[in-house]
Amino acid sequence: MTIFVVNPNSSDVVTAGIDRAMEPLRAVSPAPIAAIQLDEGPKGIETQAHVDGVVGPLLKRAAALENEASAFVVACFSDPGLAALREQSRRPVLGIAESAILTAMSVGQRFGVLSILQRSVPRHMRMFGAMGVMDRLAADLPLELGVADLADETRTFGRLQEVGRTLSDAHGADVLILGCAGMTRFRAALEDALERPVIEPCQAAAAMAIGRVALARAQQNQGDNR
Amino acid sequence: MTIFVVNPNSSDVVTAGIDRAMEPLRAVSPAPIAAIQLDEGPKGIETQAHVDGVVGPLLKRAAALENEASAFVVACFSDPGLAALREQSRRPVLGIAESAILTAMSVGQRFGVLSILQRSVPRHMRMFGAMGVMDRLAADLPLELGVADLADETRTFGRLQEVGRTLSDAHGADVLILGCAGMTRFRAALEDALERPVIEPCQAAAAMAIGRVALARAQQNQGDNR
Amino acid sequence: MTIFVVNPNSSDVVTAGIDRAMEPLRAVSPAPIAAIQLDEGPKGIETQAHVDGVVGPLLKRAAALENEASAFVVACFSDPGLAALREQSRRPVLGIAESAILTAMSVGQRFGVLSILQRSVPRHMRMFGAMGVMDRLAADLPLELGVADLADETRTFGRLQEVGRTLSDAHGADVLILGCAGMTRFRAALEDALERPVIEPCQAAAAMAIGRVALARAQQNQGDNR
Amino acid sequence: MTIFVVNPNSSDVVTAGIDRAMEPLRAVSPAPIAAIQLDEGPKGIETQAHVDGVVGPLLKRAAALENEASAFVVACFSDPGLAALREQSRRPVLGIAESAILTAMSVGQRFGVLSILQRSVPRHMRMFGAMGVMDRLAADLPLELGVADLADETRTFGRLQEVGRTLSDAHGADVLILGCAGMTRFRAALEDALERPVIEPCQAAAAMAIGRVALARAQQNQGDNR
Amino acid sequence: MTIFVVNPNSSDVVTAGIDRAMEPLRAVSPAPIAAIQLDEGPKGIETQAHVDGVVGPLLKRAAALENEASAFVVACFSDPGLAALREQSRRPVLGIAESAILTAMSVGQRFGVLSILQRSVPRHMRMFGAMGVMDRLAADLPLELGVADLADETRTFGRLQEVGRTLSDAHGADVLILGCAGMTRFRAALEDALERPVIEPCQAAAAMAIGRVALARAQQNQGDNR
Amino acid sequence: MTIFVVNPNSSDVVTAGIDRAMEPLRAVSPAPIAAIQLDEGPKGIETQAHVDGVVGPLLKRAAALENEASAFVVACFSDPGLAALREQSRRPVLGIAESAILTAMSVGQRFGVLSILQRSVPRHMRMFGAMGVMDRLAADLPLELGVADLADETRTFGRLQEVGRTLSDAHGADVLILGCAGMTRFRAALEDALERPVIEPCQAAAAMAIGRVALARAQQNQGDNR
Repeated sequence: MTIFVVNPNSSDVVTAGIDRAMEPLRAVSPAPIAAIQLDEGPKGIETQAHVDGVVGPLLKRAAALENEASAFVVACFSDPGLAALREQSRRPVLGIAESAILTAMSVGQRFGVLSILQRSVPRHMRMFGAMGVMDRLAADLPLELGVADLADETRTFGRLQEVGRTLSDAHGADVLILGCAGMTRFRAALEDALERPVIEPCQAAAAMAIGRVALARAQQNQGDNR
Repeated sequence: MTIFVVNPNSSDVVTAGIDRAMEPLRAVSPAPIAAIQLDEGPKGIETQAHVDGVVGPLLKRAAALENEASAFVVACFSDPGLAALREQSRRPVLGIAESAILTAMSVGQRFGVLSILQRSVPRHMRMFGAMGVMDRLAADLPLELGVADLADETRTFGRLQEVGRTLSDAHGADVLILGCAGMTRFRAALEDALERPVIEPCQAAAAMAIGRVALARAQQNQGDNR
Repeated sequence: MTIFVVNPNSSDVVTAGIDRAMEPLRAVSPAPIAAIQLDEGPKGIETQAHVDGVVGPLLKRAAALENEASAFVVACFSDPGLAALREQSRRPVLGIAESAILTAMSVGQRFGVLSILQRSVPRHMRMFGAMGVMDRLAADLPLELGVADLADETRTFGRLQEVGRTLSDAHGADVLILGCAGMTRFRAALEDALERPVIEPCQAAAAMAIGRVALARAQQNQGDNR
Repeated sequence: MTIFVVNPNSSDVVTAGIDRAMEPLRAVSPAPIAAIQLDEGPKGIETQAHVDGVVGPLLKRAAALENEASAFVVACFSDPGLAALREQSRRPVLGIAESAILTAMSVGQRFGVLSILQRSVPRHMRMFGAMGVMDRLAADLPLELGVADLADETRTFGRLQEVGRTLSDAHGADVLILGCAGMTRFRAALEDALERPVIEPCQAAAAMAIGRVALARAQQNQGDNR
Repeated sequence: MTIFVVNPNSSDVVTAGIDRAMEPLRAVSPAPIAAIQLDEGPKGIETQAHVDGVVGPLLKRAAALENEASAFVVACFSDPGLAALREQSRRPVLGIAESAILTAMSVGQRFGVLSILQRSVPRHMRMFGAMGVMDRLAADLPLELGVADLADETRTFGRLQEVGRTLSDAHGADVLILGCAGMTRFRAALEDALERPVIEPCQAAAAMAIGRVALARAQQNQGDNR
Repeated sequence: MTIFVVNPNSSDVVTAGIDRAMEPLRAVSPAPIAAIQLDEGPKGIETQAHVDGVVGPLLKRAAALENEASAFVVACFSDPGLAALREQSRRPVLGIAESAILTAMSVGQRFGVLSILQRSVPRHMRMFGAMGVMDRLAADLPLELGVADLADETRTFGRLQEVGRTLSDAHGADVLILGCAGMTRFRAALEDALERPVIEPCQAAAAMAIGRVALARAQQNQGDNR
C-alpha cells in the first residue's frame, strides 16, 4: 500500500525533483511513497486548459492504482482533479496547494504565495476563494521568471528572497508558501533568509498524507475492535 | 457570427430543450443563437469528473468555431471549462451558473438555488466561493428527484414550489435560480407561484451574451472611429 | 419602448458624453437608447448628499417614463437610487457601477477601480460591501485630478495609465473599471496601454440592459405561448 | 448643546415614543436629549424611496441645528442619510441600526434582528453588507405584522417571542436587536422571556451618542491643555 | 522524542479516553504518543475562564517537556493556549479544534460541528472567525446534554444522530466534526448512521502531528544534506 | 459605582498615563473613572502568553470589584480576558481594541491600526477575524520602535506620521487607531497632521463605557417603572 504522489505533467525532471523531495520523508512514513507522472500530461501545467486537461488521465491512472494506494497526492499547485479524485477514490486525496495552505494556517496567521508566473495568480485566487480562505491570504505574487531565469539558481533564489520580502513587509505575510512543485531545494535557505517559515507544498502534502494514512489505519483497526 | 450555446453533455433531449429556451431570444438578438452539444460528453453531467472531463472536448469544439462565433455560452450549471475557454477565446464567454448569479445579484439581495441533486451542492459551493459571492447566497437546496420523478412534470413542479418556499421563507432568498439547464418550462409558473423572480440560467446567460456581443461590436466600431 | 440612460446630474456636457458612449450600441440594441439628465440634479455628483439628493427627482422622472421605458440605466458610478427605482419600476433597472462590476466578474478575477477623487472611495467601499464582492476587489484608487487637470486629456490619460499600473502590478487587478461616467474616450487606449481589459461603466450597463430587455421580451413572448 | 434624536418620519406617535425612550437616559446624559421629527417625512418609512427621500430634509434640518447640536442620532432602523450627515456635520452622528449592531457586537457573538416586515429585510442586508458584519449576523427575520396587529400589544409581544426564539434556537443568535424605532416598551420583558440580551436601537444609539459627546468634550478640553 | 497530547483538564477519565483514542495511531506513528493531563486544570473546560486559565499551566508543562517533545497537541476543542504555545515552542503545535477543521476542509466543503453545550458555541464562533473559515461552516449545534445524559451511551448516540442529521439536512454539512475530546467511541458508528465522514478531533490532530513530525524530521535530514 | 479601567500590566507609568487619559472624561462621566493595574501582570504585554496569563488575575480582581463597579474596561490593545470577563460579570465590559474598532466603524469606512511591534500584528489579526471585521480593515502596520525609540517623543511622533500616511495613502485607511494603550498624548497632533480622525483606544473605550453605564441605569430605572 503506497502513497502515490502524482505529478500531472510529463516532465521527467519535475518528477525526479518531486521524488527527491520525498526522499527524507520515506524514513518516517508508514507507507512507501512513490512519485509518478502522467505521460499524457503536458510538459508543464501553465494554463487552465492544462489544469482541466490532466484530470481525465489522472482519474484513470488513480483508478488503476486504487487497490495498491494508501493515499494520493496531486503534485501541481493548481490541484487539478482534486475534487474529482475525492469523488472517485476511497483513499485520502491531498492536493499540494490545499495542503500547503492548510499547513500554513496552523503555522502563521496570513500566508503569502510565491508563484512563478502572473498568469497563474487569477487561477490561484479562484482556488483560494473556493477554499474560503481569502481572509488568511496576505498576497500571491509572481516571480515572473522565464525558463532561462529559472535555470539560474542564484538568480531564482535572489528573486525568491525579493518577492518573499515584499510578501512579508508590504503585505504582512508571516508564513510563505512556494507556489509550485519544483522549488524544494530553496526552502530551507529561503526560510533562513526571510526569518519566516517557508512551506514546500509537495512535502507539506506528503506529510499530511502520512498523517491521514496513519489515521485511516487507526480507524480501520479501531473498526475491527468494535 | 453566431452565439454558440454549448450543451456539454450529449443528450439530444437536453440540447433540444436549450434550443427551445433560446427561441424567444432569437428575435431580439443581434446575432443568431445556435444550441449545440458535445457528442463526446456524457449523457448527463452529474459528477466532478464529468465536469472536468468535458473541458477538453469543449475547448476543441470552441476552437473550431472561434471564427464564426460572436460569443460562447457554456450551458451546464457547473460552468465546466469557463476559465479555460476564457483563456483560449477572444470572444465573450459566459457560463449559465455565473450568469444566473450575476443576473440575480442585480434583481434581489440574496439568491437561492434549486439544484436537482444533493451531491452537486458541494460543487456549487466551491463555485460560489471562487466567485466570492457567499454573502449573497441564501441557500442551495436539492430537489432530490430521480429520473423517473423528473419525468413527471406535476411532481417536479410541486417539488420546485416546495423547495422554493423553503428557500424564501426559511433562508431569506428574494430571488431564485433554477440550478440546471433543463427547467425553462417551469420558470414563469414558478415565479407566479412563489411571488419572487425566478431566473432560468440558459436564458440569463444568453441575455448576457446578447449584451456582451452588442458591447463588443460597439467597441469595435468605436475603435474604428478613433 | 426605450432604454433610458439617466444621468442624474444636470451637466449637459456629461449627458452629451453619455449619449456619444451609447452611439455605437444603438445599432445592436433591440430598443432605442436615450440619454437623459435630471435638471434638478447638481452639476456633478461629488458627495453622499448629492447621491441621496437625486433619488427623489430620479424616481419622479422614471415614474413619468415608466410606460415608454423598456429599461432604466442609472448613469452615475455611485448608483444613486438603484434600490429605490427597482422597488418602483416593473422594468429592468441597472446601475453603471453595479453593471461594471458584474461585467468585470465575468472577465477577470479581481477588479480595480479608477476613481476620480479620494473622497468618493469610502462611498464606493460601502457599495462594494453591500454588493458582497469585497473578495473580488483588488483596490479602488483615486486619480486625484481636479477639474482643470481633467480638461487636459494628455494629463488625464497619463494619470489613468499610472494608477492603472499600480492597480495591476501592486494590487493584482486583472480587469479595470473606469469609476465615473465620463471617460469613455479613454477606454480603448487604456486597454491597449495596460494590456488588461478595461470596462467603461455606461456601456457595460447599457449592454446589460440590452440583454435584459431581450430577456424580458423573450419571457413575455414565452408567457404568451403558455 | 443638545443631542438631537431625529425621527425622519412625521408620525407624532413615533416621535413621542422615541421621546419616552430617551427619558431614562436624560438623567445620566452630559447634554440634553431632544426627540424631533421631520414634518416633510412620510408617516412611516417603509420603502427604499422613503429612506432616500428623507435625506434632503434631514440634512437641511441638521444644518440648521448644527450650532446647537452636540450630536445627531438618526432614529430609523434603515439609518437614512447617515453617511451624508457625517460628511456634512462636525458633530458625532449615529444611526440607530448601526449603533444597535455595534453595541450587539460587544455583547454577544451573533446578532439576530427582529424586523417588522419582510420587505425591509433586503434593505437591511445591504446595510449589514456595507458595514462588513455579515459574519456576525445570525438572521434578520420579519414579524410580518400589519398595522392592526401591531396595535395589539399582546399579539405583538407574542410574535416577538416567537420570532426571537427562532432567531436564538434555529439561527444561533445570542443577542437580539429590535429592528425598528418603536418597540422600546417590549425590550425588558422580551429579554426576560428569551433569556438573551435584547437591544433597543434608539436607546443604544443615544447611549453611544452620550459616550461620543463625552469623548468629544474630553478631547476638546485636552486640546485646550496642549 | 514524544508527541505529547495534553488534556488541559484534570479529569483522569477524559485523559484515559484520549489515551485510548491514541492507541490505534501508535502503531503507525514515527514517535511515541503520550496522553498527559494538567493537574492544575479544572475537571472540565466549560467556560472562557477555564480556557484562558489553563494556558499558564499548559505553557509551563510544555516548557518542561520541550526537549523530549517532537510535537504538542492541545486536546480541548477550544484550543486553549494554541497561539501562546506556538510562540513558546520550537516544535509543531496542533490544536484539536483547528486540526479537525483543517482536516474537514480537505474532506468536504462545509463542516458541521456537534458541540456538547450551547454556551460553548459563541466561543467556537470566535475561534472559527479568527481562523477565517466562516464560509466553510455549515453550523455548530449543541447536543445540549447534561452529565447524566452523557453517561447514557444510547441516549448520547441518539442525540448525536439527531443533531448530525439536522447539520446535514437543514444546514448542508457534508462533513461532521465531534466538538469535544471525549467522543471517540461514537465516531465510526455515527459515520455509518449519517453516511457522512465524521472527524474525531483528537485523532485528527494526532494524525496531523504525525505528519508534521515526519515533515520536521525530513527537513532536518535535508538540512544536514545541504 | 465606578468605571474601572484595568491596565492588565504592572507598569505604574502606563497606569498613570491611562489615568491622565481618563482625566478629561471624568467631568462628563455619570460615574467615577478609576485607572487600576494588575500587580501580578508583566511589565508590558508583549506576547500571547502575557495576554493569556493576565486573564486569571484580571478575573479575580474584577470579581472583587464587581459590587462597586458600574463597568469594566480592559486597557490593553489585545483585549485580554474580554470574553471571560463578560461571562463572569453582570456589568458592561469593554475592551480598548474592540471599542476603538467599533468607534472607528462609525467614523470611517476602513480603519488602519498603528501597532508598536510587528509581532503583535498576527495576534491582532486573529482578534479582527474573531470580530468578523476584516472587510473594514485597511491594514495593521507596526511602528517597529524599541523602548529607547519610544522614549524619544519626536522620533515616535515622526514614525506615527510616517506609518499613518502609509495606512491612508497606500492602504486606503480613512480612520486611524492607535494600537496601544500609551499614546494618548499624540492623538490630537496626529489627527491634525494626517487630516484623518485618529482614535485613542482607552478614551474610546471609556466613552463607550460611559454610554453603556448610562444605558444600564436608564434600563434599570425603566425596569422600576414597569
